[in-house]
Amino acid sequence: MVVDWQTLAKEKRDSVNALIPKAWLLPSPVPPASEQRDVTGKYIQQFLSPAEIEITETDAVGIVKNTTSAKWKARDVAEAFCHRAALAHQMVNCLHEIFFDAAIADAQRLDEYYAKHGKPTGPLHGLPVSLKDQFHVKDVETTMGYVGWIGTFEGKKGLGKEKVFESEMVTELRNLGAILYCKTSVPHTLMAGETVNNIIGYTWNPKNRNLACGGSSGGEGALIGLKGSPVGFGTDIGGSIRIPAAFNGLFGIRPSSGRLPYEGMANSMDGQNSTLSVVGPLATSVGALKLVIKALLTQEPWLHDPLVAEIPWRDEQEQAVLDIVNASGGGQLAFGVSKSDGIVNCQPPVRRAIDIVVKTAEKLGHKVFEWNPPSHKRCLEIAFKTWFYDGGADVHAAFALSGEPMASQIKSSYGTLKDQFTASEIAANNVAKRAYQKEYMEYWNSTSKITGTGRPIDAVIAPLAPFAAARPDMYSYYGLSTWVNMVDYSAAVLPVTLVDKTIDVVDEGYQPLNEQDEKVHLAYDPELYDGAHVALQIVGRRFQEEKVLAITEILGDAWSRALRELGSSTPKHPLKHHANFL
Amino acid sequence: MVVDWQTLAKEKRDSVNALIPKAWLLPSPVPPASEQRDVTGKYIQQFLSPAEIEITETDAVGIVKNTTSAKWKARDVAEAFCHRAALAHQMVNCLHEIFFDAAIADAQRLDEYYAKHGKPTGPLHGLPVSLKDQFHVKDVETTMGYVGWIGTFEGKKGLGKEKVFESEMVTELRNLGAILYCKTSVPHTLMAGETVNNIIGYTWNPKNRNLACGGSSGGEGALIGLKGSPVGFGTDIGGSIRIPAAFNGLFGIRPSSGRLPYEGMANSMDGQNSTLSVVGPLATSVGALKLVIKALLTQEPWLHDPLVAEIPWRDEQEQAVLDIVNASGGGQLAFGVSKSDGIVNCQPPVRRAIDIVVKTAEKLGHKVFEWNPPSHKRCLEIAFKTWFYDGGADVHAAFALSGEPMASQIKSSYGTLKDQFTASEIAANNVAKRAYQKEYMEYWNSTSKITGTGRPIDAVIAPLAPFAAARPDMYSYYGLSTWVNMVDYSAAVLPVTLVDKTIDVVDEGYQPLNEQDEKVHLAYDPELYDGAHVALQIVGRRFQEEKVLAITEILGDAWSRALRELGSSTPKHPLKHHANFL
Repeated sequence: MVVDWQTLAKEKRDSVNALIPKAWLLPSPVPPASEQRDVTGKYIQQFLSPAEIEITETDAVGIVKNTTSAKWKARDVAEAFCHRAALAHQMVNCLHEIFFDAAIADAQRLDEYYAKHGKPTGPLHGLPVSLKDQFHVKDVETTMGYVGWIGTFEGKKGLGKEKVFESEMVTELRNLGAILYCKTSVPHTLMAGETVNNIIGYTWNPKNRNLACGGSSGGEGALIGLKGSPVGFGTDIGGSIRIPAAFNGLFGIRPSSGRLPYEGMANSMDGQNSTLSVVGPLATSVGALKLVIKALLTQEPWLHDPLVAEIPWRDEQEQAVLDIVNASGGGQLAFGVSKSDGIVNCQPPVRRAIDIVVKTAEKLGHKVFEWNPPSHKRCLEIAFKTWFYDGGADVHAAFALSGEPMASQIKSSYGTLKDQFTASEIAANNVAKRAYQKEYMEYWNSTSKITGTGRPIDAVIAPLAPFAAARPDMYSYYGLSTWVNMVDYSAAVLPVTLVDKTIDVVDEGYQPLNEQDEKVHLAYDPELYDGAHVALQIVGRRFQEEKVLAITEILGDAWSRALRELGSSTPKHPLKHHANFL
Repeated sequence: MVVDWQTLAKEKRDSVNALIPKAWLLPSPVPPASEQRDVTGKYIQQFLSPAEIEITETDAVGIVKNTTSAKWKARDVAEAFCHRAALAHQMVNCLHEIFFDAAIADAQRLDEYYAKHGKPTGPLHGLPVSLKDQFHVKDVETTMGYVGWIGTFEGKKGLGKEKVFESEMVTELRNLGAILYCKTSVPHTLMAGETVNNIIGYTWNPKNRNLACGGSSGGEGALIGLKGSPVGFGTDIGGSIRIPAAFNGLFGIRPSSGRLPYEGMANSMDGQNSTLSVVGPLATSVGALKLVIKALLTQEPWLHDPLVAEIPWRDEQEQAVLDIVNASGGGQLAFGVSKSDGIVNCQPPVRRAIDIVVKTAEKLGHKVFEWNPPSHKRCLEIAFKTWFYDGGADVHAAFALSGEPMASQIKSSYGTLKDQFTASEIAANNVAKRAYQKEYMEYWNSTSKITGTGRPIDAVIAPLAPFAAARPDMYSYYGLSTWVNMVDYSAAVLPVTLVDKTIDVVDEGYQPLNEQDEKVHLAYDPELYDGAHVALQIVGRRFQEEKVLAITEILGDAWSRALRELGSSTPKHPLKHHANFL
């Protein structure tokens, strides 16, 4: 008997929701966004104990400080995050898989290990880590939002790998002492900056439920945004780590491909190897990102993932940044700033965020230069081709498994099956890509002539989306994130401010550059956007993860300090308080 | 007026030969191989002065020691190598391009720099470096053996790059003080282990002119084998550095892709990026290989080539090998040994070379284990597909430019234009490749259980071809070199011995494994092969170039010492002298 996709989806959804302990169910449904726009902070806190709030609002660095010194029990930490994640899911639909029981049992074992040996199992001892639903975890399914993948291994039956196989990074996280407890929602196909599929429906932005949580690592963004996880891993082929990090006010990093192990993860269009999807963390602090990357690199992933390059964590590269800054009384890094790519201009909140970060950098004594790289139009033409080599064959096959429909966000790009690229066409695009990358890096090199620091630009301050967050089904332009994937640079997300409808007013009389730009311009509505997170990306060169994180931390800390000095009691909610900084 | 390809080829050939100074022309043609099998050593020396012999028979390390201390003038060194290269070309057809005048002028400028500043320009000050004819060098053509590329830039006219554009590594070599003076022959398409094209004809093996010099970096192999160059660069997508190194008794290394800059080089099937061709050096000593790689990495090629990973030269990885050996009285590395891949067995001289190296390792106190990796048959099926993604379109287009015919060595594989792979088929092969690589690396990891050293195998001792050298048009099996490209490992060539017809007799009653194996078996003729070089490869993991070179040097030095102790007065010509070592 063939079961219709609606039934399969509902059964799956119900079976996951059934794993939430009764005591953690919300007493009543969350009010609509019109009544309760923001479910973070005080709203979610009302369902938690003070101890749970303390634990879940501590960043990953603080957590491992407590768990590796036995000040906190791993089990208490695991339970607190499982509880908060359960609440988060009920508020915004951010989970695909729940395995709280396994997590609590794992945490219990860690506590027993500590009691017996008097030391932690590893540097991430007892740290809850959430995973995008591309990771395979023992005893748990991976659907990646496809109804047709339910009960299979990546859509295939009878491989014997279902619920047994684990992705390489999962093994490494376990080795390091991390606690795995949930997998987070994605848009089916992974090819969207929003998160929607026929199993969980739509994942909303917890800070402003009128808006998208981002995608494709959208469940990660929403969950960590609600502090239902201190740190989690997403993937990024066109912005999928940075977009949800930004939309949820988080730090995140898209490492260069080959820095962290992607081995054994599910994917769309697996084997397309012109633009590789990369895996990287999202978290509430830069420290958390460093903590998990550094820990993973101690596992020598290059011995377990054929695509990882042998590049250990390099403290000296971080130190080199600090040495420059310390030797210059806090400044003298050189930044490029990119306000627009010439195709689309950013909405007012994003433009203000750029001003804030540029002014912050300048006040510290850094130099900021206009960034005029090789044509982004050309860059994006090459990049977007790589996503359509197979004409949509892989995506269509996945939908055909169950007969489920495509979300409109996917339909707009993959709705019609097209001709496949030939080997010659793919090769030509690879050559064009390499040529563009070469031009871009030589442009970057050339800036050593203008910085006056003896070095080229240290990093580029740039938007990663033209809006604070996308409105549902209105993510019309990916160019601001995707150029980074094309050149394979390291890029971290720096949360900057919140949309303030009183400051971020509509540009009256704006003359759009083109149709795409007009769409972005018209999508801005101060009333609707009010309170949403606004973030930027700090872009470094290939494999400069250490440097990019160091710079992101420097800029973030400086801006937080500035807010405090300006009298903002809540630097994370700096509404209106920084107007006089600009 | 359309000029026929024969005329174009002859004009090109004549124009290059015309660049040989009259004084350096051979007084009479070289006798046939039946009379003068070996043109190395005493044969070529007869045309050189004692000073020229001294210079050209010094390895690259010795040369830079003299040139960077002004003991030798760069100009004298350049002239000596230009002279010897001119002789080599007349003997075996190993050059595509000659630019002795530019080289001597460059050397003169280096001498003037030294005279003025009292120091060398860089670590390669005055070192002649030969280049495979894929490198673009200012004022010089790149034909890659295609008649249709004559007078063009990679087959295209009017780009304005002809004779102007330089490959990235060329720039870096110049920065380091190297002297560029010739480009060496290749088989058209580069897809052969022999060197033949319609411009220069066939490049013969100088040590045994019955045999092929190897390919595709065959001109490099022949030229350096005749000591017409101390070190040169070739490329390797299936064995093309290692094969000519081995066939000419040289050291050479195929680095992992992304270690050295390939940027801006001509290629066949450019943009095929499942198996990347890599660039690496061939030379007369391991020290020379280290010298040039280390020097190039000081140029930070990752800032100039988008595909190079940021991995500087790591002295500590070399030192780690030496520390193990020193702590163990000379031994305690662990080797895998692969005598056959189960598809083809090696001819007697290669089997003897394996025995020599294994015994050498064991005598030093190292451990040697049988190597049983995942199926090489499966590996090669994946690897060979990557060479035929475009069905031969690129190759056919190159031949069509002039109407020239394919050499039989190429025709056998690319003769018929086939269907192109689709994007989905390429993606599936990429997935299969990654899965194989993962299995292979986990097999390697698993050997830590058997070595007793606490580490997995340090390197694998393996043949890189089933024969000492190929007989013309009889290179029937590439599997022994190509598996390394599939897993992207670092592999150095260790020259071991010479074919000795009195020891290396035919296997009577040999039962071939299959048709391929039978071809290899039947191709062995002790009389014809007598005196040919025999070499093996030492294979390390991805990006372990430092370790592989350290190990290759240790084994090579030990075997040379053993030969000396056995009373061989000429360790480079150990005929018969080592029989009692085995």
